[in-house]
Amino acid sequence: MKFQSLVIAFFAVSHLMAQEHTHQSSRALEFPNIPGYTTLKTDLHQHTVFSDGNVWPNIRVMEALRDNLDVISLTEHIEYQPHKEDIPHPDRNRSYEIALKEAQNHDLILVHGSEITRQAPVGHNNAIFIEDANPLLVDDAVNSFAEAKKQGAFVFWNHPAWYAQSPKGNPVLSDFQKERINKGELHGIEVINTGDYSEESLALALENNLTIMGTSDIHGLIDWDYIEKGHTRPITLVFAKERTVESLKEALFAGRTVAVFNSLLVGKTENLVPLLNASVKFEKAKYIDNTTILEITLRNVTSSDLIFENQMPYTFYSSSPVFTIPAGGTKTLQIKTLEKIMDLTLKLKALGAYVAPKEHPIVSWNIRLEE
Amino acid sequence: MKFQSLVIAFFAVSHLMAQEHTHQSSRALEFPNIPGYTTLKTDLHQHTVFSDGNVWPNIRVMEALRDNLDVISLTEHIEYQPHKEDIPHPDRNRSYEIALKEAQNHDLILVHGSEITRQAPVGHNNAIFIEDANPLLVDDAVNSFAEAKKQGAFVFWNHPAWYAQSPKGNPVLSDFQKERINKGELHGIEVINTGDYSEESLALALENNLTIMGTSDIHGLIDWDYIEKGHTRPITLVFAKERTVESLKEALFAGRTVAVFNSLLVGKTENLVPLLNASVKFEKAKYIDNTTILEITLRNVTSSDLIFENQMPYTFYSSSPVFTIPAGGTKTLQIKTLEKIMDLTLKLKALGAYVAPKEHPIVSWNIRLEE
Amino acid sequence: MKFQSLVIAFFAVSHLMAQEHTHQSSRALEFPNIPGYTTLKTDLHQHTVFSDGNVWPNIRVMEALRDNLDVISLTEHIEYQPHKEDIPHPDRNRSYEIALKEAQNHDLILVHGSEITRQAPVGHNNAIFIEDANPLLVDDAVNSFAEAKKQGAFVFWNHPAWYAQSPKGNPVLSDFQKERINKGELHGIEVINTGDYSEESLALALENNLTIMGTSDIHGLIDWDYIEKGHTRPITLVFAKERTVESLKEALFAGRTVAVFNSLLVGKTENLVPLLNASVKFEKAKYIDNTTILEITLRNVTSSDLIFENQMPYTFYSSSPVFTIPAGGTKTLQIKTLEKIMDLTLKLKALGAYVAPKEHPIVSWNIRLEE
Amino acid sequence: MKFQSLVIAFFAVSHLMAQEHTHQSSRALEFPNIPGYTTLKTDLHQHTVFSDGNVWPNIRVMEALRDNLDVISLTEHIEYQPHKEDIPHPDRNRSYEIALKEAQNHDLILVHGSEITRQAPVGHNNAIFIEDANPLLVDDAVNSFAEAKKQGAFVFWNHPAWYAQSPKGNPVLSDFQKERINKGELHGIEVINTGDYSEESLALALENNLTIMGTSDIHGLIDWDYIEKGHTRPITLVFAKERTVESLKEALFAGRTVAVFNSLLVGKTENLVPLLNASVKFEKAKYIDNTTILEITLRNVTSSDLIFENQMPYTFYSSSPVFTIPAGGTKTLQIKTLEKIMDLTLKLKALGAYVAPKEHPIVSWNIRLEE
Repeated sequence: MKFQSLVIAFFAVSHLMAQEHTHQSSRALEFPNIPGYTTLKTDLHQHTVFSDGNVWPNIRVMEALRDNLDVISLTEHIEYQPHKEDIPHPDRNRSYEIALKEAQNHDLILVHGSEITRQAPVGHNNAIFIEDANPLLVDDAVNSFAEAKKQGAFVFWNHPAWYAQSPKGNPVLSDFQKERINKGELHGIEVINTGDYSEESLALALENNLTIMGTSDIHGLIDWDYIEKGHTRPITLVFAKERTVESLKEALFAGRTVAVFNSLLVGKTENLVPLLNASVKFEKAKYIDNTTILEITLRNVTSSDLIFENQMPYTFYSSSPVFTIPAGGTKTLQIKTLEKIMDLTLKLKALGAYVAPKEHPIVSWNIRLEE
Repeated sequence: MKFQSLVIAFFAVSHLMAQEHTHQSSRALEFPNIPGYTTLKTDLHQHTVFSDGNVWPNIRVMEALRDNLDVISLTEHIEYQPHKEDIPHPDRNRSYEIALKEAQNHDLILVHGSEITRQAPVGHNNAIFIEDANPLLVDDAVNSFAEAKKQGAFVFWNHPAWYAQSPKGNPVLSDFQKERINKGELHGIEVINTGDYSEESLALALENNLTIMGTSDIHGLIDWDYIEKGHTRPITLVFAKERTVESLKEALFAGRTVAVFNSLLVGKTENLVPLLNASVKFEKAKYIDNTTILEITLRNVTSSDLIFENQMPYTFYSSSPVFTIPAGGTKTLQIKTLEKIMDLTLKLKALGAYVAPKEHPIVSWNIRLEE
Repeated sequence: MKFQSLVIAFFAVSHLMAQEHTHQSSRALEFPNIPGYTTLKTDLHQHTVFSDGNVWPNIRVMEALRDNLDVISLTEHIEYQPHKEDIPHPDRNRSYEIALKEAQNHDLILVHGSEITRQAPVGHNNAIFIEDANPLLVDDAVNSFAEAKKQGAFVFWNHPAWYAQSPKGNPVLSDFQKERINKGELHGIEVINTGDYSEESLALALENNLTIMGTSDIHGLIDWDYIEKGHTRPITLVFAKERTVESLKEALFAGRTVAVFNSLLVGKTENLVPLLNASVKFEKAKYIDNTTILEITLRNVTSSDLIFENQMPYTFYSSSPVFTIPAGGTKTLQIKTLEKIMDLTLKLKALGAYVAPKEHPIVSWNIRLEE
Repeated sequence: MKFQSLVIAFFAVSHLMAQEHTHQSSRALEFPNIPGYTTLKTDLHQHTVFSDGNVWPNIRVMEALRDNLDVISLTEHIEYQPHKEDIPHPDRNRSYEIALKEAQNHDLILVHGSEITRQAPVGHNNAIFIEDANPLLVDDAVNSFAEAKKQGAFVFWNHPAWYAQSPKGNPVLSDFQKERINKGELHGIEVINTGDYSEESLALALENNLTIMGTSDIHGLIDWDYIEKGHTRPITLVFAKERTVESLKEALFAGRTVAVFNSLLVGKTENLVPLLNASVKFEKAKYIDNTTILEITLRNVTSSDLIFENQMPYTFYSSSPVFTIPAGGTKTLQIKTLEKIMDLTLKLKALGAYVAPKEHPIVSWNIRLEE
């Protein structure tokens, strides 16, 4: 009781420290909405001291706010509790409850989740939108999945290519996964986990109509595993009707996602192409005097560098056909249209994006030029 | 049991992530040894989830390694356990024990410590080099201090100027502290805590011959509270006969310390002057042809910027009398000696250093010039 | 004739080059006006190919625009013409005339000047506000100075401490300079030239009431001699009634200047103190709840880092008494006023500034605190 | 005579300026030798005050040294002399002669050159390895080319796509160029000029077996047109038998070049593929324990970022198939070889390189793995 006010006071101390200037380069993730949908930035695979992570749940909330995420889920291993000697609490919902208190003070959506973990072929799987993690803790994984379904969970297979369980890194569906899919108990698959992108997992996603996921799977600190290495954390962009838990859930079941890690974007064509379309804005289009060379400035409104290759019949005047628009920056193209035109169809291949293994999307923008 | 190997495997995953290039600017703290002593970089006031901190103890070890520290102590509040519902373990030594496992794999000394926390005038105090934290948890602070002494602890008063307990920020010794000092139960005082330097606390240190301490008092992440703001964590440099726990303890009791925060260095004259002397090395001293202008390069071998003001009878040719040698960098002076001399006494006032409130040390180097 | 349009076309080419992003950190010099005066940023000592410099005069105009200067003067050696074989033009006004064409397209004042150059004791001197450089080119320096006076020139002694002419670096006035001063033919003195600050020259300025000057004396490129080394070019701030050549001239004769190089500012008390006063703005002053600790944010509106030391009876809560407000940045102080006050007299010693050899100005700001 | 020593003294002054620390990021261009040839970094199209440039020739030498070039040529317009009023010298070799004095003090090859300039269709052309520029100054361009041939010059067509002469930016060979090629009077073509890459010019080079050139065409400062924008100057890499003028000339006539601008590399297959082969070195290849995932580190030994796309039958474990090895940096790949192999053929498409319009080279490296 005597110490009731101490937490607040201690935090105040650290805020008091006068800042001469901050050196932090911006790490806020930014992606535009697409027509008809709000784009939610999510990281739905994370750990804390309540399983084998190294931080208290509130740190995960604060990391998410620094990264400008909309949604997170703490997905503790319910079966694997290396800190059990010190944190013996039998309730597997504690991590969620503690984080919820922190998240409620901020504009961050917290989704209740849990990891279901076994050796291969079951492997690791995340169930999110659960109501109670405790009933998932049963011996037979089949029963865990059944319980998750009963709770209405969205379930995805974590890092299928993980070499500790798949020494060749080329996952295939086992009977277990096939049965889960058939029973409507497995809905998504991580195509990006940590910094690892698996073309094989992408193929599985497309063949089995699973939702494409990207997650950080963070155990330590986002700052150490990503930021100080010059990376951004892997995330899943979810295209939801509204910024609510219900809309998020609908969108995940409907497969409306793009997985993102640095400049790599992976998604189904119907999701990735609209995202890329919305990611580039146009400024200052006009012909250079006395020429048929059209000068146009492209602005990248995302936090990912976007790498493109020209796919138009026209060549460029002062750029390589392969070019990058830096995150949040611009690139000015001069396009040799050979005659003055009123409508330009800018057509670019997105070299950092994949809609299938080895397949880049081609994106077109119709631009009405002013006279 | 089935998951015994999981922790290792998960960490391996994150190391696998291919690094294109790292953006981390060096945060390693560096300070030279001084004649007769090894300089130990210590942070002896830190918290984890085992009191009101937000990380598992292993994170504190990893932070210390990144900062190139020699010694840390985790000083949990034994009386204040906001996470008790989830971490009910009655043994107040757990934080130390867990960190010890992590530290033993590295070249880092871990000192067993504990915080003794009361409202003013007792305030907050750290006892380090203890054997068992549990007996310190008694109602009367007097008995806590007595027990600490019994265990041979070195005890220091934390942030006496902290405005939550000292609303004017000007601490004085209460009868409690006076009695502790008289009984040999209080040996040091924080002059720098978080980013706060207190001249009043420095005055108390000098008047009562208390050891001068600087600590981070970290609850969250060193990266967020210091690194991303362009700061280094506050530390205490301890001048020990050897790099051992025993020598460290001897040196702390003997008062051989300098507290450091960024470019601020605070210590007793007998400790700070030798440190500054050792912190500057000399390169390339020679006269400019046909002149009596001596060119000499000074190298700062510490991780603190060093700010000096010329105190010689000679003026400079191409520098302001007030100049900075950046951390790890050099500054070339041209000194107008008016005639060619064989021995230079370089004499500088250290503007970033204090040996008493408002009092900067003056440092001299005798430099034998080659012909 | 056929090529009449080529120059424009060539420049257009280089502007066409699409910029992905620029890496240039801001080099624009910024200093505030002071009460009653407009602050003009000037560099009045520069060379081009028309004497012993290495660039065409238009480059000097473009450099000045990048550095955000208000006024420049090209002060060619009239007697020293190492490129005479290729540039034999006998008219010593050509450099001015060519630069004038470039400057007229921009908001930059160009002052006609010339250097008068002899061996010691005459040394190097700049005459500015001249009408015609040619009559200055006479054998006897005495006559050159007389002609400069006839034209109404403001004349200043360049780098008196330059070791090529003053091997001890400690200039004294010769009979020549004394006579020039007595005759009203010498009005100023460089206290900063290139990166060299001379306390001896400052003493001469004060003893003889000469105007304090700072100049780049550039021969090569500002980018190489200053910018890429992390320096800003040395300049003279002139406090003029208006932003006109006439006001500039009046101010220089009246001695209203401060010489600046990086964080070094040198001027007479009556000029430097008002400049420092105007250089710091205040934001967000309020007491921390339940304390008598006043938190106040200081903003440095100049392009020089400002280094201060506390001179108040009050101590600071979370800052060293010696602190820097970075160029264009802020520093938040917490001041222990011991009781709540309505008016604060903030009093600081400016450690990067000199009003006399080894003498820093003390600056006070009276701040009315809101309730 | 009196001033004989002044130039040296002035330069000494600027070197005296004490450097606290330099902020210049490295701009030195680096490219490896290829089997059988020394790689010479050249910029063979530059201007000074002796035509329509803005600097004295010595600045071009100093720029080249900063950029780590091996060879430069100053190619003044002989017909276009906007500074003629001030620089009336009738000898068109002066620029070369002055630069030669500066270059001789350094390890830089200076090639004597000149620009032959007319309106379209003749356009702009550079003749290098000339003996005397004056005889090239004749009314009829046909005669200029004939004279250049007589002197043994290597001649290349400058910026054929330049919109001031080619408003659509799509150059074709006129009868004039065809005749010059047939007569052996035109040997090369700029495919990169300033920042402009022309696919049309590349097509002309390949169709007519012209040597591929890249040049800065600098008139102002390399620092302003390139460095401060984050660019490197455009250059031509020439693969010569030795580092001599004769070998350089032989290599240019033989067409052994690659044009480079930032991360864009353009050359004939037989030149570009060996360059890319030599540009990547391999470190630390080994299988991850208990897997068939081969970890291998690639080092880019050039000053250009290299952008690649995987072309192997194997997929990657932790990288996008499209990846960049930063200039001078490394990238670690994990390759899923599915079984342990002893020889790896690493096969990558170089997305920043072109061997023909829109055609990227594919590069293979055979790597013997240790057991």
